[in-house]
Amino acid sequence: MTKSVPNWLKQRAFLTPERPALHFEGNVWTFSELYEKALRWASALEKQGLKEGDRVGLLVQNTPNAVYVIHALQQLGVSAVLLNSRLTANELLWQLEDTAAAAVLYDPVYQKAVEELNGHFFRISLASLSSPEGFSCREEFLLDDICSIMYTSGTTGNPKGVQQTYGNHWWSATGSALNLGLQEKDCWLCTVPLFHISGYSILMRSVIYGTSVRLYKRFDEKEINKALKRGDGTIISVVSAMLSRLLASLEGKYHPHFRCMLLGGGPAPKPLLEACAEKQIPVFQTYGMTETASQIVTLPPEYSLTKLGSAGKPLFPCQLKIDAEPHSEGEILVKGPNVTIGYLHREKANRTAFTNGWFRTGDIGYVDEEGFLFVLDRRSDLIISGGENVYPAEVEAALLSHPAVSDAGVVGVADEKWGQVPAAFVVVNKPVGAAVLRQFCEERLAKYKCPYYFFQLDELPRNASKKLLRRELKNEFEKRGGG
Amino acid sequence: MTKSVPNWLKQRAFLTPERPALHFEGNVWTFSELYEKALRWASALEKQGLKEGDRVGLLVQNTPNAVYVIHALQQLGVSAVLLNSRLTANELLWQLEDTAAAAVLYDPVYQKAVEELNGHFFRISLASLSSPEGFSCREEFLLDDICSIMYTSGTTGNPKGVQQTYGNHWWSATGSALNLGLQEKDCWLCTVPLFHISGYSILMRSVIYGTSVRLYKRFDEKEINKALKRGDGTIISVVSAMLSRLLASLEGKYHPHFRCMLLGGGPAPKPLLEACAEKQIPVFQTYGMTETASQIVTLPPEYSLTKLGSAGKPLFPCQLKIDAEPHSEGEILVKGPNVTIGYLHREKANRTAFTNGWFRTGDIGYVDEEGFLFVLDRRSDLIISGGENVYPAEVEAALLSHPAVSDAGVVGVADEKWGQVPAAFVVVNKPVGAAVLRQFCEERLAKYKCPYYFFQLDELPRNASKKLLRRELKNEFEKRGGG
Repeated sequence: MTKSVPNWLKQRAFLTPERPALHFEGNVWTFSELYEKALRWASALEKQGLKEGDRVGLLVQNTPNAVYVIHALQQLGVSAVLLNSRLTANELLWQLEDTAAAAVLYDPVYQKAVEELNGHFFRISLASLSSPEGFSCREEFLLDDICSIMYTSGTTGNPKGVQQTYGNHWWSATGSALNLGLQEKDCWLCTVPLFHISGYSILMRSVIYGTSVRLYKRFDEKEINKALKRGDGTIISVVSAMLSRLLASLEGKYHPHFRCMLLGGGPAPKPLLEACAEKQIPVFQTYGMTETASQIVTLPPEYSLTKLGSAGKPLFPCQLKIDAEPHSEGEILVKGPNVTIGYLHREKANRTAFTNGWFRTGDIGYVDEEGFLFVLDRRSDLIISGGENVYPAEVEAALLSHPAVSDAGVVGVADEKWGQVPAAFVVVNKPVGAAVLRQFCEERLAKYKCPYYFFQLDELPRNASKKLLRRELKNEFEKRGGG
Repeated sequence: MTKSVPNWLKQRAFLTPERPALHFEGNVWTFSELYEKALRWASALEKQGLKEGDRVGLLVQNTPNAVYVIHALQQLGVSAVLLNSRLTANELLWQLEDTAAAAVLYDPVYQKAVEELNGHFFRISLASLSSPEGFSCREEFLLDDICSIMYTSGTTGNPKGVQQTYGNHWWSATGSALNLGLQEKDCWLCTVPLFHISGYSILMRSVIYGTSVRLYKRFDEKEINKALKRGDGTIISVVSAMLSRLLASLEGKYHPHFRCMLLGGGPAPKPLLEACAEKQIPVFQTYGMTETASQIVTLPPEYSLTKLGSAGKPLFPCQLKIDAEPHSEGEILVKGPNVTIGYLHREKANRTAFTNGWFRTGDIGYVDEEGFLFVLDRRSDLIISGGENVYPAEVEAALLSHPAVSDAGVVGVADEKWGQVPAAFVVVNKPVGAAVLRQFCEERLAKYKCPYYFFQLDELPRNASKKLLRRELKNEFEKRGGG
């Protein structure tokens, strides 16, 4: 049984030292340069007292410094706890204490936030890190070692730390390559946060594949459209909201080298996918989560149009089943070597989440006769109205197909008669009345699925990875006095 | 720790049922069709009494039937003992008894050979195998299970059965993809025997990658040149002797889709590599063996010309070291998840072969300052003359650079004065005298390396995978009364 692989970055720098590894704001670093940087940073961190087996918090922006420190921690054998920079001081502190972090490493822009943290750990600014001294790194990575920890947003209860092993990242990367293919000149655009699995996994693939990453501090649709038209990237990871913005500002076509728009972060509205098909944008819908170290189900190239709206089939090393009768909807269960070994310090949650090696995602979906997964919704967001199941994503997709609606979010709110009813929050790009939208929905959806309430917002509440924060919509509903 | 992956063929047939899996003599089978065939054959084999955990001998030609039966055995969980069809009855019997084979499955063309075998096992002709009945296959392959057994030619002593696990084949395939890349339209030409790891591994990659195999009953340089010029394949596995024949009959250029001439089977003469460079043939030199489930060291694309003659660097999941001072020659040691778990029933040989997870290849080489491996020779072929090491491959390369020499083999023969001296066997394409060749060598090699004897043969003795059989050259030397 294989228990280890060669130290990734060292091996990559040895095998293909001169290939580009990282592009950022007009600069480029080779794998050899990246490795040298990582060793220097590892040396500096070691001098600060960090050692193998430690856990440390990481509060970083999408910059080369973040890439160096992520790799430096892997060289040291330290588990990185990726902190979401939008968290409050209390939330940050909670995660650092839950992981018993030895230190928090932070980008200087977060200095003030770190100073506010009232905990017992070292505070190390990334600005202070560089050492000319040598560092003797590990020859191998043990596949069972914890490489990274990321807290899931958790709609209820405290967030849980998802432990991702080197093996999880390895199998995720190779599983993705077996589906998407792998070309020496591939370049993956990273506009998603490195503290989310969507961004972190791009770095891991780069080192394992020997292909480059083009890193962006933030997502700007005009800049990305320019890059993709110029041929500056072959693959990009996006969520629906980002794709909508790209489409809205896109004139002309992407460069022929651009080969994959990897669309994650939940079910996408059909009109958006159809618009992409029209513009010949190769959209690969995908389904994954922090617990699966990114993608686990992706729509294979040959079905990207005929199975529009499906998340596809499992990656080659993975399996999928629905906890229900064949072809009916139920909870999605997944299995594979990319699935987390469990939540940190959460024995009870782990017992609930895992059954005979299968992980219960909590999401609802069904598998059609040909084995394609259709994700309906997050179970926790399910609206039950008069005994009927209402899936917010379905209602949102309907709303988004109206030309005046540019974004939409639907949540369940309490109702005396029906238990719950759907409430819709929309962002519009031209004036439209609630009555018009109501009629529009009634033409497209069963009566019980149509929103009872309509609200207009300037912007929907979304987290750093653009996932809709439905809880905040519920708060908004309360604030407005129940409509 | 990951212990299993989904049943490969089932998963592949589920993920991409309509992609071509196998081309043979103008016919094509999809993965879905291949899976159906394998299940029918598995069902038929089960009815003949074969069961999980059994070992069975396989005596097959390169035909679709061989592909079906190889996959059928994997579906059953039966280990396949791949028999070389050039073996004598005694040699076959020895391997079947060494593995305690429950049966020997044979292609009808080998019926007579099988009838001659005097052993206690079932004899099942592939002509008799097909069953319309269903078969309930395994959902998963355990990575530690023995998938195949192949006997190494073994220059001394009895041949040893190399046990290859599903994990060995898996990591070999993914390691190769991380080096060579992976494209949906890839098609690997298989003209090497399926009973050798070079051929068998092509089948495994096909299923794991979702790409096709174009199978040939035998190697015919004219037919292959036609195929490669037409764009019928993107990758082919060859050894030097095959590549020479391809080059000699090649007019014009290969199709631009042809992207990899994977050249294994021992060090290649430099003139051959230079001729390929001239014709823009993308040669990837590689080093591997039955014990490493095919390639373990391959020259990466960007160095194919600047490091001509090197076997390259290890595949990403693998490591390499030389048992000697840095940059000096010594035994090649390798480590990686594609390396065999050991020889069947050979505890002593296994203790000798493995040290702390490193496998001693018995081959001699050195690694240059940049980490590139240069394979000098098989240790067992080493000629020691007057205390100096003489590597046959080096002498052969010198001989092959003479325009009149089309093939060359060099062995050590006993000598009273020097202990051993090199003896050369050549195949010529126009008349050339021994004196001319001797002078030619003396101009290129240190005196002690120059052959003492020169013999002309119509053809050199090679095995089915075109590897030179040096022992037969030694016999030839004896027969000729020592020159």
